[in-house]
Amino acid sequence: MTKKHNIILQPSGSRGQVEEGISIRSAARDLGVEIESICAENATCGKCMVLIEEGRFEKYNMDSRRENVSPVTNEEAAYFARRPKLLKDKGWEVGQVRLSCQCKIQGDVLINVPEESSGNKQIVRKSASNRAIEIKPSIRKYLVTMSPPNLERPIADWERLAKGLETSMGLVRRGEENLPRWSDFTVDYQCLRTLSSTLREAKWNVTVSVWQDKEVVQVQAGYHEDSYGTAVDIGSTTVALYLCNLRTGEMLAAESEMNPQIVYGEDVMSRIQYTIEHKDGLEKLHKAIIATLNKLLKQAVKTANMSLRAHFAKQSPDEEGEVASGKSAPRNDMKVEDILEMVLVGNSTMHHLLLNLHPKDLGLAPFVPAIHKSVDVKARELGLHINSAGNIHVLPTIASFVGADTSAMIVAEEPHKQDENWLLIDVGTNAELVLGNRKRLVCTSTPTGPALEGAHVEYGMRAAPGAMERIEINENTLEPRYKVIGVDGWNTDHVEFVGKVKGICGSAIIDGVAELFRAGIVDSRGKFNTKLSSKRIRKGESGWEYVIAWAEETSIGRDIPMTQQDVRQIQLAKAALFTAARTLLKRSGLESPDKIILAGGFGSYIDKEKAMLIGLIPDCVLDNVYAVGNAAGDGARIALLNVEKRREIESVARKVERFELPTDPEFQNQFMLATSFPHMSEPFPHIAHLIPNRVADPMAKNFMVK
Amino acid sequence: MTKKHNIILQPSGSRGQVEEGISIRSAARDLGVEIESICAENATCGKCMVLIEEGRFEKYNMDSRRENVSPVTNEEAAYFARRPKLLKDKGWEVGQVRLSCQCKIQGDVLINVPEESSGNKQIVRKSASNRAIEIKPSIRKYLVTMSPPNLERPIADWERLAKGLETSMGLVRRGEENLPRWSDFTVDYQCLRTLSSTLREAKWNVTVSVWQDKEVVQVQAGYHEDSYGTAVDIGSTTVALYLCNLRTGEMLAAESEMNPQIVYGEDVMSRIQYTIEHKDGLEKLHKAIIATLNKLLKQAVKTANMSLRAHFAKQSPDEEGEVASGKSAPRNDMKVEDILEMVLVGNSTMHHLLLNLHPKDLGLAPFVPAIHKSVDVKARELGLHINSAGNIHVLPTIASFVGADTSAMIVAEEPHKQDENWLLIDVGTNAELVLGNRKRLVCTSTPTGPALEGAHVEYGMRAAPGAMERIEINENTLEPRYKVIGVDGWNTDHVEFVGKVKGICGSAIIDGVAELFRAGIVDSRGKFNTKLSSKRIRKGESGWEYVIAWAEETSIGRDIPMTQQDVRQIQLAKAALFTAARTLLKRSGLESPDKIILAGGFGSYIDKEKAMLIGLIPDCVLDNVYAVGNAAGDGARIALLNVEKRREIESVARKVERFELPTDPEFQNQFMLATSFPHMSEPFPHIAHLIPNRVADPMAKNFMVK
Repeated sequence: MTKKHNIILQPSGSRGQVEEGISIRSAARDLGVEIESICAENATCGKCMVLIEEGRFEKYNMDSRRENVSPVTNEEAAYFARRPKLLKDKGWEVGQVRLSCQCKIQGDVLINVPEESSGNKQIVRKSASNRAIEIKPSIRKYLVTMSPPNLERPIADWERLAKGLETSMGLVRRGEENLPRWSDFTVDYQCLRTLSSTLREAKWNVTVSVWQDKEVVQVQAGYHEDSYGTAVDIGSTTVALYLCNLRTGEMLAAESEMNPQIVYGEDVMSRIQYTIEHKDGLEKLHKAIIATLNKLLKQAVKTANMSLRAHFAKQSPDEEGEVASGKSAPRNDMKVEDILEMVLVGNSTMHHLLLNLHPKDLGLAPFVPAIHKSVDVKARELGLHINSAGNIHVLPTIASFVGADTSAMIVAEEPHKQDENWLLIDVGTNAELVLGNRKRLVCTSTPTGPALEGAHVEYGMRAAPGAMERIEINENTLEPRYKVIGVDGWNTDHVEFVGKVKGICGSAIIDGVAELFRAGIVDSRGKFNTKLSSKRIRKGESGWEYVIAWAEETSIGRDIPMTQQDVRQIQLAKAALFTAARTLLKRSGLESPDKIILAGGFGSYIDKEKAMLIGLIPDCVLDNVYAVGNAAGDGARIALLNVEKRREIESVARKVERFELPTDPEFQNQFMLATSFPHMSEPFPHIAHLIPNRVADPMAKNFMVK
Repeated sequence: MTKKHNIILQPSGSRGQVEEGISIRSAARDLGVEIESICAENATCGKCMVLIEEGRFEKYNMDSRRENVSPVTNEEAAYFARRPKLLKDKGWEVGQVRLSCQCKIQGDVLINVPEESSGNKQIVRKSASNRAIEIKPSIRKYLVTMSPPNLERPIADWERLAKGLETSMGLVRRGEENLPRWSDFTVDYQCLRTLSSTLREAKWNVTVSVWQDKEVVQVQAGYHEDSYGTAVDIGSTTVALYLCNLRTGEMLAAESEMNPQIVYGEDVMSRIQYTIEHKDGLEKLHKAIIATLNKLLKQAVKTANMSLRAHFAKQSPDEEGEVASGKSAPRNDMKVEDILEMVLVGNSTMHHLLLNLHPKDLGLAPFVPAIHKSVDVKARELGLHINSAGNIHVLPTIASFVGADTSAMIVAEEPHKQDENWLLIDVGTNAELVLGNRKRLVCTSTPTGPALEGAHVEYGMRAAPGAMERIEINENTLEPRYKVIGVDGWNTDHVEFVGKVKGICGSAIIDGVAELFRAGIVDSRGKFNTKLSSKRIRKGESGWEYVIAWAEETSIGRDIPMTQQDVRQIQLAKAALFTAARTLLKRSGLESPDKIILAGGFGSYIDKEKAMLIGLIPDCVLDNVYAVGNAAGDGARIALLNVEKRREIESVARKVERFELPTDPEFQNQFMLATSFPHMSEPFPHIAHLIPNRVADPMAKNFMVK
């Protein structure tokens, strides 16, 4: 029987007995600790470095010695000789630091696996749950070294590569899962076209990029460790693209642009209309988004190269004797062709326009999308300028107006893994809502109108310098104060505010309506109390209004009021949102959600308390209301970096129950009730303290004037 | 327990007990008899018609009655009411003829399954073995009828179709194999693009074409039963395309054209050279073959439509009340878009040029192809004008110069399924040889030069009117006679021959050399016997020669001789071929093959006896030498019609052992010996009787002059 030895791996603390003579890397895997490697254990990549800790470890009753592992091999010595700066910077000496693929167990030993060698890489998502996300990209790279063909063995190039790849994959990922045999691999046709010349240029030493463990999509001469991918969130207004390193998860660039389709229609319905009315409408809208994505790709690569160059310039002079200067083009500049995958999300209309699918049936009852299932399509089919063999993955759509962006939100927040019932709301001109937990998820969508984004409000504007972003009204004096984007503090704090303000952005509109209600200026039905004595409450051109800023305070030379019409707009929007949430809660047999998660830019800027005060969101403990920013973009990034999440959302998206509001018999009735502040039939205990002039009357289930 | 009844199916004679109440179609399947259906058992396609035979069948001790099956349903009655002509032509009455998907077992019954209803369709290949080939195409069609979406169930178009397809597939092919679930289906991206509009135009009643049981590649409005595919053999000289009905196996058109690449080089080496010497060489050669294939596709569809129209004009006036005339465009004209698959074969160079893979490494030692494995690629990637979602399947290559045409030859002849050892030879400017049986196959290739095709022979020409195709020489008078293409009988038979002949084609060159040898005009080393007294044997411009036709017999006004140089050319060609065959036999431990199969046009035209006499092929019982014509084209057609044959050849091609002749240490020596007639070291008992002037000397293993 083979002798066994105790080994301990830090920092994980994994321990166990392993057979004498196996490599540290194999031993670690047997104990559940993955150590990186990309060179097929050839002692060339250095990814698998570990430290042999010497000493007596009483806790484990172990004497760990460098002599308890095999001596440094010539290959290891050669590797470390090429890395003097690394050793100096880290303060490591050869013998202490070892390549775990070469170093074999000969006795008890305590091994330290540095973070950079750990194969279980993670990124942390900052959200309602600060979850760690494991990096499991769809693209993996393997170094493949082949013997050149000769007359005795003139096997074809592809078969030679596939056999070499089988060996490298097996060596690098042994035991991890059922890896394919060489004859199961496929090769992208465009990649095959250049295979023969690349193999010969590379002298039969190449890095092979494999998609989903089966398809070879790139073959590069020599050794390359990093793969790149992009995640994209196509919003109706803004397109955001994130360029990531698929090995480390690091984000190398984040770029955004206006959605160019906006010139064909501001909202999705008008864009659908454009494709119906114009024969070349779809083609124009499709080409516009593709062009913008290609522009963003270029920008992102430029941004990434700037930081890569800086990194290279810092590292290189000492490493491998390379001379690098900022002027000469560094050899490791990345190109768009090095991007091997792209994951995209967007609402159903953006999804269709991206994929060049006609959206007309999304615009006509019963509003049916072409496909729910996720779509994988080659970049060249869409004319996207990543590597032409690269894959474009579009997340699944869930219902007519619950699109791939909602799928991405679910990926980011994982309501399907919770015991609590979470309510996810992505607010825009259309709102998508998902409610539930690990047992059941329900979803719906509702148009909220543009009011929540500051449009169709008399002095509404986008969140930009000069826009009011916060409003407060003193309930005794009925005097307001406000904050403006680009200036610190309240307008009442300093005189510099004079002449700065020019409109009201989305978050301040919620504030303003909430404060009008809280101060008693409008009643729970949204009607102005015309009996209050304040010169700010007046009859304007379009009815009653409340002046927040006098003309002299503004840059536009006109009074900026909130009008009866503005209040009505918000009432309609919040009624739609609230009714949708209520319907989902009712269908789930729930009184209220355990947690509310607000996704999207809007969710990040509004005052949660005020939103609850006007009944925009259901009553909930305020601490359990989270604004998580661009959850769709985060979800796209997670799906890019972890291929298992794609399989997960594919199955979750298929199971989410869809409620179409108009088919709910109580919808109209509920909607009417929901226009009131907060809601005619709901108790709002968590915000009752905000309303000094009123009390919550549990009997009437509503707020009454004192 | 359910009651059971005896049923007998004719003409197969299958019999057994089945449960009461199941349909005849299901019962037949349980007894191993497949009955066609394409309408998902909706009584609309009529493919599953069977006859209920009435009477007392003593042999089976059975009383078969129409009352022993369920009554004719309204749907059946409606179907037959639309087919009066069919019933009249066949002499069937309703009740006797039934739709087996509707008609249920209620007692003992004898059922006749007409050929047209049989689901196990076959075509017969005429070759060395008159085998039946089952039709199992990669494309299957299913009628899918869906309920339209509404607000209660607005599921996406693709998912609606996939669920309907799952149902139709299950109904149509129940029990046949593990069919995929709806969520496993994929859809070609270009097919997805038009899905929504097709479904609505078709009022949710479509025919879905599925590739390899998983990918939807075409969705057509309404009911369509036929799918089309093409098989192509790309020869260096000629491109042959066969358009087939994938359901019936019927060949609808066979078209051929010169390979347009011929202008860039007559043989493969000169075409490879062209791609090396010209930067745009590969592009030119690739585009040339693609353009020719597209031209052939168009021609084939035109040919097919002419016969389809004729068929339609004959059938339609009585059927379904349709009025059809030869003038109005009949609604069932097929289009190139209806062709859903294309299977191609060709030698390694043709394979590379078709796929736009650079062939330069095929032209330089060690002569390595880019890929052996079969290639599946979308038609649109290659610019081939079948349906853009259609698949292009290129058969595997086996070795450097043993290409996809040899794979196709193996598919057609199936040496890998024999107990006997077969030797397959495809002769062209290059010859490929495969030897073996079910246990082991070995292969090699050898350049034979252009002599065997009539080129580089002084008066050589292609097989065209005016070419000598047969030559005989009287061994006593040394006078010749010959046959000419386009004229009946021998030249000595009538005077009309005068002035017709203008050259010698490949088959006559073999004849001529064999007869020169048989008559003793050249010796076994190929040298002219200058001592013979005949005015036809003379010293010409380039050495000794034998005049076959005097100037006055020809249309060119010059004597047509066979020269020493011509004999040498044939000696070199036959030596190469013979050495290759000998090497394979030796490596396999065999003395001689049990059967010799000559593929290619050359094999069909030569005189087997004469070929053996000069040692072009090894000695073998003459009856066991078969000429099978274009086996590569046949193999391509079989692979098109039966997808299992593709999997089979993929695995066989991987196992064939490859011998590269130049690496054989004895090659040069063997080759020198093999230049003699028939062969210096071989006994040729089977052709000894042909040589009256000589005897076979078993001791010397050669022929001696008497």
